[in-house]
Amino acid sequence: MTIVEKILASHSNKSKLNPGEIVNAKVDLILGNDVTAPVAINEFRKIGINKVFDIDKIALVPDHFTPNKDIKSAENSLLIRNFAKEMQITNYFEVGRVGIEHCLLPEKGLVAPGEIIIGADSHTCTYGALNALATGVGSTDIAAAMATGFLWFRVPETIKIIYKGKLKPWVSGKDLILYTIGQIGVDGALYKSIEFSGETIKNLSIDSRMTMANMAIEAGAKCGLFEYDDKTKEYLEARVTRDYSPIASDKDSIYDKILEFDVSNIEPQIAFPHLPENTRPVQEAKNIKIDQAVIGSCTNGRIEDLRIAAQIFKDHKVHPDVRCIIFPGTQEIYINALKEGLIEIFINAGAAVSTPTCGPCLGGHMGVLAKGEKAISTTNRNFVGRMGHPQSEVYLSNPAVAAASAIKGYIAHPEEVL
Amino acid sequence: MTIVEKILASHSNKSKLNPGEIVNAKVDLILGNDVTAPVAINEFRKIGINKVFDIDKIALVPDHFTPNKDIKSAENSLLIRNFAKEMQITNYFEVGRVGIEHCLLPEKGLVAPGEIIIGADSHTCTYGALNALATGVGSTDIAAAMATGFLWFRVPETIKIIYKGKLKPWVSGKDLILYTIGQIGVDGALYKSIEFSGETIKNLSIDSRMTMANMAIEAGAKCGLFEYDDKTKEYLEARVTRDYSPIASDKDSIYDKILEFDVSNIEPQIAFPHLPENTRPVQEAKNIKIDQAVIGSCTNGRIEDLRIAAQIFKDHKVHPDVRCIIFPGTQEIYINALKEGLIEIFINAGAAVSTPTCGPCLGGHMGVLAKGEKAISTTNRNFVGRMGHPQSEVYLSNPAVAAASAIKGYIAHPEEVL
Repeated sequence: MTIVEKILASHSNKSKLNPGEIVNAKVDLILGNDVTAPVAINEFRKIGINKVFDIDKIALVPDHFTPNKDIKSAENSLLIRNFAKEMQITNYFEVGRVGIEHCLLPEKGLVAPGEIIIGADSHTCTYGALNALATGVGSTDIAAAMATGFLWFRVPETIKIIYKGKLKPWVSGKDLILYTIGQIGVDGALYKSIEFSGETIKNLSIDSRMTMANMAIEAGAKCGLFEYDDKTKEYLEARVTRDYSPIASDKDSIYDKILEFDVSNIEPQIAFPHLPENTRPVQEAKNIKIDQAVIGSCTNGRIEDLRIAAQIFKDHKVHPDVRCIIFPGTQEIYINALKEGLIEIFINAGAAVSTPTCGPCLGGHMGVLAKGEKAISTTNRNFVGRMGHPQSEVYLSNPAVAAASAIKGYIAHPEEVL
Repeated sequence: MTIVEKILASHSNKSKLNPGEIVNAKVDLILGNDVTAPVAINEFRKIGINKVFDIDKIALVPDHFTPNKDIKSAENSLLIRNFAKEMQITNYFEVGRVGIEHCLLPEKGLVAPGEIIIGADSHTCTYGALNALATGVGSTDIAAAMATGFLWFRVPETIKIIYKGKLKPWVSGKDLILYTIGQIGVDGALYKSIEFSGETIKNLSIDSRMTMANMAIEAGAKCGLFEYDDKTKEYLEARVTRDYSPIASDKDSIYDKILEFDVSNIEPQIAFPHLPENTRPVQEAKNIKIDQAVIGSCTNGRIEDLRIAAQIFKDHKVHPDVRCIIFPGTQEIYINALKEGLIEIFINAGAAVSTPTCGPCLGGHMGVLAKGEKAISTTNRNFVGRMGHPQSEVYLSNPAVAAASAIKGYIAHPEEVL
C-alpha cells in the first residue's frame, strides 16, 4: 500500500485498502480558523450535543483577520474564543500567542507521523511534510468531526514524484513545487495523494518540505506526503512526546502515476498571474516592475525563509517604489528571527515587519493591492484578485527572489543583488 | 504676547496681535495622511494649478489604514503616492519607512520651535511639545495651504496651566493630561492655546511632553505649547539643522485664564468610557475585566513608553484572556526598542508587536473590538465605538497601567505586578 492507503487503513480498522473505497476514519486533530471555525461551530450547534469528541484534539487558530481587522472579524474571533472556553478546548491560540495555523501546529507538536489531521483550510496539507495525512476539508466536515471524531474519505490514488539532482544556488523547495505544478498543472493531481521522494527530497530541510506539502493543493492534490527520515525525527524530537508510527509506502505499492524530474538545472521559478501553474524561470520575468513584496505566510514564513531573505537584504535597502512586508509565521519564529538579528536587518532595509497573520496572502488586510498594482509574493496563490483589486497581479516566488525583487524594484534573480 | 500670539505675529508680519484677530499666516509644514490627504488632493486639483507652493514643506504619511487594510485604503494610498511623485514632494513616507505621523515628523526633524505646522489630523497639536504652533485643520484647509503656503487663523486666547509638585511613581505626562482634561472638561480649552508650564513640566521628558501636547485637542484646544529648554535643545540637536527661534511668552502676557495644579499627589489616571474627561484614579477602576490592551499610538508609542511597558512585562505574561497589541510609533522607535531588548520582552510576554500604524486607536484595523468587549489603551480617545463596536468600551491610561492590566486581566496599578 502507499502511505495514504496505510494511514487511512490504520485509522479505519482495515488491513487493506484500495483507491476509490470509502472509509470512515478516526481523525487525530481537527483545525479551524477565524474564517472557517465560526461556520463549523454554528453547524456543530445544530447537532444538538454539548461537548466535542475530545477537548485535546481540536485546534482553533484565529489567524486570518487578526489582530481583528474590523467588527465582523472581531465578532468571529469572539465566537470561537467563547466556544473554546465553553468546550474547554485546550488548543485555542490567542492573538499574541498565536501564529499562522500551518506554521503553528507542527511547532506546537500537534502533528506526528502517521496521524490524520483535517482542517477547514485548504493548506492543511502542509503537515504532509511530517509524514501525516493532512488535508483541507469543509467547515461542515469539521463540525461533524468535532462531534464524532470521525470523517469519511474516498481513498485517493497516489502519484509518486521522484526528484533527482542537486539544486542550483537559490533554488528551494518553493521552486520544486512551483516547477512541479508548472509541469502537471493546477489539476494535475486532482484528489490524488502525492508522494514526494527522491534524492533531492532527502536533502531538503523540513521547512522546505513544508513549503512543498503546503502547495500540494495547488495541483489539486488531497495531500502531499513525505517519508519519515532523520530530519523528520530531529524536528519532532523537541516537539512531540507521544508515541507515533512513521509510515512508508510498500515496495509493491500501486501508483496511479510515477513521475521523475531531474531538477539539477532548474532556476528559481516565478508563477505568473493568475495561476500557480504559469511558471517560468526567473530569468524570463525580467523588467516586471513591482509595487509590493510579501515575504511570509504558511508557505514561506518559517525561520529558514527569513534567514534567506535576511541574507539578501543585509546591507541593502528596499527600493523606494516598493512596500516590502514581512510576516514571520509564528511568535516562536519571530523571536528566533529577532535573536538571530534578522528582524533588525529587515527594518534597517526599510521593510515592515508584521505580527504573524495570514494578512495579505488572501487580500485580507496588512498589504492589500490597489488597481493595477503588482506584487511578488512567497505565498501560495496568485488567482485573480487574490491580494486585492481584481486588476492587481501576484507573482509567486521563493523568499530569495522576493527579497532581491524588493531591492531592485522589478522581479530579479538573487544574483543581481549579491 | 503669549507664545501663540508671537508665533502667529511672526508668520503674518505683525508686530502685535490680540486674541480674536484674524490673520493670514505663512505655514512651515503641511501634513496629510492616507485618510485626509486624498480629500485634500482632490480639492487641490480643483484650484487648477499644477504645483504645490514648496515641495519640501509638505509631509504625506500613509499611516492610518496601512499596510493597506483593504482595496479602498490601497486606492487612497496609491492616490497620495502618485500625487507625491507628480509634485516631487520630498517628505513622502512609504510603508516600511514610515511611522505614525505625529511620532515621525519630530523624529525626522520636520518640526522646530517657533514654526507653524498644520495637519489634516486632529492630533497635529503634538508638536507643541517642541515649542511649535501645531494644529489640526480640515482637508480643504490643507488643500488651500498646499497651493498658497498660507492659512488663516483666528488668534486664540491662551490658558496657562502651571503644574507643581513631584510626581508619584508611575505617574507620567499621560496622567497629567488626563487629570487636566478631567479638571477642565473636553471643551475646557475650546479654541484656546494652552501653555503647559511649571516645575513639574520642566522635569518631564520630551516624550512625555509630546503625550501631553498630543491630547490638548481632547480639551478642545487649538494647540498645546511648551517652552523651549535644554531638553528641547537636546532633542532637536540630532534632528534639526536649519535655524529656528524658540518663543517664550512675555511676562506681561494677557491670559484668558491661569490654572494651577498641585500634582504631587495624583495617581495614575484612567479615563472611563466614553469621554477623556471621565478620569478617575486607577484605584477606582479596579475589577474592570479587560479583553484587550493596546500600547502605542501617537500618544504613547515612543521609546520611553515602550521602556516603561517592558519594565512591567519583564518576567510576566499577558493574561490568557487578554490580547495585548503593541505598536511602536515609528521604524526608528521599533529598531531602538529591538536593540534595547524591549521587543523580545513583549513577545516573550505573549504580546503581538505590530509594524507602526494608527491601527486600533481609531478602530481602523489590527485590533478592532467586538460587541461588549473592553480595552485599556494608551491612545487618546474613548468615544463610543472608537475602537470598534458601538457597544465596546475603551479605558485610557498610561503605558505602565496598560501593561499591568494586560498581565492581571483587569485594570490594575503597576504596583500590583511589580
